[in-house]
Amino acid sequence: MKTLTIDTDRLLRDLDTLATFTEPGTTGWTRRAFSPAFIAARAWLAKRMQDAGLSVSVDAAGNLIGRRPGLVDMPSLMIGSHTDTVPGAGRFDGMLGVLAGIAVARALDQAGVQLHYPLEIVDFLAEEPTPFGLSCIGSMGMAGVLDERELARQDSSGRTLAEALQAVGGRPDDLGSAIRKRGDIAAYLELHIEQGRVLEEQGAPLGVVQGIVGIRRAMLQFAGRPDHAGTTPMGLRHDALAAAAEVILAAERMAYAAGAAVATVGRLAISPNQENVVPGSVEMSLEVRSLNWGTVERVWAGIESEARTACSSRGVELIAGDLHDVAPMHTPDWLLEIIARACGEVATDPPLLPSGAGHDASWIGRIAPAGMIFVRSKDGRSHCPEEYSAPEDIALGANALGAALLALDHYLDLTLDLYLDR
Amino acid sequence: MKTLTIDTDRLLRDLDTLATFTEPGTTGWTRRAFSPAFIAARAWLAKRMQDAGLSVSVDAAGNLIGRRPGLVDMPSLMIGSHTDTVPGAGRFDGMLGVLAGIAVARALDQAGVQLHYPLEIVDFLAEEPTPFGLSCIGSMGMAGVLDERELARQDSSGRTLAEALQAVGGRPDDLGSAIRKRGDIAAYLELHIEQGRVLEEQGAPLGVVQGIVGIRRAMLQFAGRPDHAGTTPMGLRHDALAAAAEVILAAERMAYAAGAAVATVGRLAISPNQENVVPGSVEMSLEVRSLNWGTVERVWAGIESEARTACSSRGVELIAGDLHDVAPMHTPDWLLEIIARACGEVATDPPLLPSGAGHDASWIGRIAPAGMIFVRSKDGRSHCPEEYSAPEDIALGANALGAALLALDHYLDLTLDLYLDR
Repeated sequence: MKTLTIDTDRLLRDLDTLATFTEPGTTGWTRRAFSPAFIAARAWLAKRMQDAGLSVSVDAAGNLIGRRPGLVDMPSLMIGSHTDTVPGAGRFDGMLGVLAGIAVARALDQAGVQLHYPLEIVDFLAEEPTPFGLSCIGSMGMAGVLDERELARQDSSGRTLAEALQAVGGRPDDLGSAIRKRGDIAAYLELHIEQGRVLEEQGAPLGVVQGIVGIRRAMLQFAGRPDHAGTTPMGLRHDALAAAAEVILAAERMAYAAGAAVATVGRLAISPNQENVVPGSVEMSLEVRSLNWGTVERVWAGIESEARTACSSRGVELIAGDLHDVAPMHTPDWLLEIIARACGEVATDPPLLPSGAGHDASWIGRIAPAGMIFVRSKDGRSHCPEEYSAPEDIALGANALGAALLALDHYLDLTLDLYLDR
Repeated sequence: MKTLTIDTDRLLRDLDTLATFTEPGTTGWTRRAFSPAFIAARAWLAKRMQDAGLSVSVDAAGNLIGRRPGLVDMPSLMIGSHTDTVPGAGRFDGMLGVLAGIAVARALDQAGVQLHYPLEIVDFLAEEPTPFGLSCIGSMGMAGVLDERELARQDSSGRTLAEALQAVGGRPDDLGSAIRKRGDIAAYLELHIEQGRVLEEQGAPLGVVQGIVGIRRAMLQFAGRPDHAGTTPMGLRHDALAAAAEVILAAERMAYAAGAAVATVGRLAISPNQENVVPGSVEMSLEVRSLNWGTVERVWAGIESEARTACSSRGVELIAGDLHDVAPMHTPDWLLEIIARACGEVATDPPLLPSGAGHDASWIGRIAPAGMIFVRSKDGRSHCPEEYSAPEDIALGANALGAALLALDHYLDLTLDLYLDR
């Protein structure tokens, strides 16, 4: 099997250059989708794709795609991520995956390697939250789940998503042409910073992502009774915050007990929230995440059961809001094995871990086998100027990405041979 | 011993009339201290005092005082409360005590009863919170704890408390003349609505107040670490809200266990308070109240110890703010017995209960034996237009107040005889 030499110095320079496209007057680095900085960065990015021997286009969903032909016409191997950022962001989230993809394409080009499959390097449009109340717009479009209703969403100025999409080269009237069907993409790879502390804690530069967790979210309302903190004895209280506190601890305890799950109460709205008044009502956000959907449901049911007990013993009414479920994305075992072997070529015993956050891979994983490689994040920081991954870790990640691509081309080639009975 | 017949219909009419002095354009009834409505109400009130045979004056601390001479010149028996309200208030809090005092004086006048001691009916100035960040201004002045520093406080318009005091007939330059020393007041009585649900729950129209609870308050800060709710496994979290939840439950549990105490967490400020972020820091109000100061300290220590454990197990730093202590006021046993007997003359087995809220009696209790009678509140509501006590309960309260006053005059007269060796 071939091997590939990635010019990681060039990759690091590209990361530095891309970071210079930032919205003026913001802290850290800011390149929100649809902004002038974003559009300028994409023009630069298109040139980098061309330099790497890729033919560049923008699909109807606004994704910037650099394509390299294969021996067959389809399906393609795809590497992607995004280059938009949240306000006041860092220089790695998303950018690393796109620029590492280009670096791999450049290495293929310079070594004159002929892959069996076409290769597509994709800069997905607007992975981060947008003023349209939507994120992952480009990968949703490619997965075929972006519809007219979403396109009609407006930002605070009244501009529609359709208009914004057009301004970055998308074609809202022809969204169907951006859709890839199952079978169009042989496999999808995404290199991304971890944005957490698991790899750092384990002393590992790279991690093999088992999949992207499923999430269940809901708002819980606790309706008690506001009473004077002095004149109301404990036995006459209906303390909504005390009931909520039991749920906060139940969530923590049950997620711990489940092992591979997290549960979070991140937000409370307390009324009247005054020092000398027994809290009358509390609104609470609750979310449970796990790669295993059965675990999500089991943890959720356990928390809900404790919530009911905590409320009924205090005469507090529990009103559970609608459940919002996001199904997990599982990387197929065969792809996981290829990625793990590729990572193992450059790093010792790369750990397996789930991605607790969503990515473009969440959507592409619905139409194609999708896998991710995580690069260690310093102190777990992300979405802030302190976001950082070491140059040597980035170099390992890019090399693992290249190795995984070559292995995929080889492995799928063999599979194709079997299919085609060659 | 003499008995007294209170004209309770007249008292109820007086309550209705006093309620008409309300600030225009506010919900419910509003008569904030220093407002035109308050000043007009006091002019009316002074006339009611005169009609009842009292000689009226305003002391240097702005208290409106109606005085009836006794056989001796001092010490005096005092009945008081306040007629100012919070914004959007009801028609009973404070008002009942002042008007019932006048009703008692009127009954004495009409029956031609000669008391041994002088009687003073006091409308204390500004018991409710004021724009000067101070409450109980008049009773503090009488207790001698209102000083130059307090008088210099300004409201949002820059007006000083000294100026406001002058506008209601007080004499800020002569505050010392308002001070009563220990021995000047033989006993103080205050009839007040309960503002809680204890009497209602027990089916009792009247309650005998054992004293006013002591309060310990502090802000607790929990400094954890804000982390992404998806990418941070349970074992790597420093969840400030989970630590705080343990303290909320510890406060509830320890106050329950102590029996005659309440503990309240009424306010939380959570940061960043976002659904998908592990809470990084929490600021919490905590207060513990009990008539028994030892209980306050024991409950507080227990909560603090659990807080330390909850924080250290989560790697959360606990920063406890300064303690703000208000000592309890205890009604002396002999006075409690007189009041209980007076209440027992009009109602069956009046329960003993502490006052969980502060009153003018808190301050007067520092310079004189002070006792209170509570009248049942409907549904515990207060500081709102729904505040209500039934006419028949009010009648019982006024009669108990009159009976207690006569008993005091009799009891203290006997004591005085012993002292004077008559």
